[in-house]
Amino acid sequence: MKNIKIIIEYDGTKYHGWQTQQNAKTVQDTIESAFLKLTNEKIKLNGSSRTDEGVHSLGLVANFTTTTKIPDNKISYALNSVLPNDIVIKKSEEVSLDFHARFSAKGKVYKYLILNADTPSAININRAYFIKQPLDIESMKYSAQFFKGTYDFSSFKSVGGSAKTSIRTIWESEIFVHDEIIQYRISGDGFLYNMVRIIMGTLIEVGRNKIDKDSILRIIESKDRKLSGPTSPPFGLYLEKVIY
Amino acid sequence: MKNIKIIIEYDGTKYHGWQTQQNAKTVQDTIESAFLKLTNEKIKLNGSSRTDEGVHSLGLVANFTTTTKIPDNKISYALNSVLPNDIVIKKSEEVSLDFHARFSAKGKVYKYLILNADTPSAININRAYFIKQPLDIESMKYSAQFFKGTYDFSSFKSVGGSAKTSIRTIWESEIFVHDEIIQYRISGDGFLYNMVRIIMGTLIEVGRNKIDKDSILRIIESKDRKLSGPTSPPFGLYLEKVIY
Repeated sequence: MKNIKIIIEYDGTKYHGWQTQQNAKTVQDTIESAFLKLTNEKIKLNGSSRTDEGVHSLGLVANFTTTTKIPDNKISYALNSVLPNDIVIKKSEEVSLDFHARFSAKGKVYKYLILNADTPSAININRAYFIKQPLDIESMKYSAQFFKGTYDFSSFKSVGGSAKTSIRTIWESEIFVHDEIIQYRISGDGFLYNMVRIIMGTLIEVGRNKIDKDSILRIIESKDRKLSGPTSPPFGLYLEKVIY
Repeated sequence: MKNIKIIIEYDGTKYHGWQTQQNAKTVQDTIESAFLKLTNEKIKLNGSSRTDEGVHSLGLVANFTTTTKIPDNKISYALNSVLPNDIVIKKSEEVSLDFHARFSAKGKVYKYLILNADTPSAININRAYFIKQPLDIESMKYSAQFFKGTYDFSSFKSVGGSAKTSIRTIWESEIFVHDEIIQYRISGDGFLYNMVRIIMGTLIEVGRNKIDKDSILRIIESKDRKLSGPTSPPFGLYLEKVIY
């Protein structure tokens, strides 16, 4: 019995998120089915994160135990040969039996892309959130820094998460601009349900001058979801990396 | 009667190229049908270029004459409201009646993207040519410069083009590398049928050390298509801009 860690890139557009659910195609199912097809062995993946429908991954991590004889570093190629091309296993390796993709994770890095332009992109559909109205980038950059630190982030979670506490530590919260693309990068020791998308939605409201750029700490302290911005759409969000 | 110039971005994946043909969906048809739906007026687009199936555009230009009362700079928005989202009109404006998107063009800029990595990308399917084998980038950069200048490019065209002469002037021919993406940029006063893809295929063979990096001028002078490299796949190619 071996414990295998895999790193997965996927385009979330055609999937109902990561996690197995009834009557819907998910990324987890698709990889488990691919392994079954390949080896005739049923596996159960532990995913580092439960990404929502439409969210993308550049580096979600999963682990599973298996008795397969495929060498650990070749499992990625074997899986890629039977997976649809919007899911790619970037790497596979054997890890110690106590490694668990979710419980062993020390932190995560997300990015969110906004296309702030006069017209949407035909090439990058479902890969960035298109906003036509010019945004006040300097205010967004200024407000973004206030998310760094250890806080109760109850104002920035949707109902439905299973977390025991809403306290999280954010290490990095920064806006970069490359031509018409606004990229937001956030990393921390963990994230509540929809937290990145609500923070992004709040920063967008700052960029629209609908939320005061100096109000972030006040919104955090209020623990009131009604004071933060809307949940921004899933297709701009990318899980970039999981840290162990 | 007005002459309208439009700039078009499209993802070529689902189209049989730009130009109208029987029993196949093309970008030209799709835009002409959208205009008909919008105004009940039949138009005929003159496109700057006949991109092949799978090739993308960031800036193909077309013109058409119309009697529509939609203001010239609003035609783009009106068309976008009825077009599928993999075709976007970036701009529309009235131009003089003698402007013709193809015959008035002074030059074109293309780019070609290669993903040179260990695994393909799940996010950018059909947007770059995936090559797993490491390429000799320095040799590719060196060879690329020899395409600049005025030459008979018969060694770099496919049969089937309608050009009267194979002499073209190339202004820019350069390789850039950003992480795992190799970008080739080429501009010139005109291009023969499949010329960019054959040049790219030749530079890839240089990168694989299958074609000598010092042989480009010799291959040009030979006017022999058998000496140049294979035609690289269409989905890495982008028509970036047309110059007037």
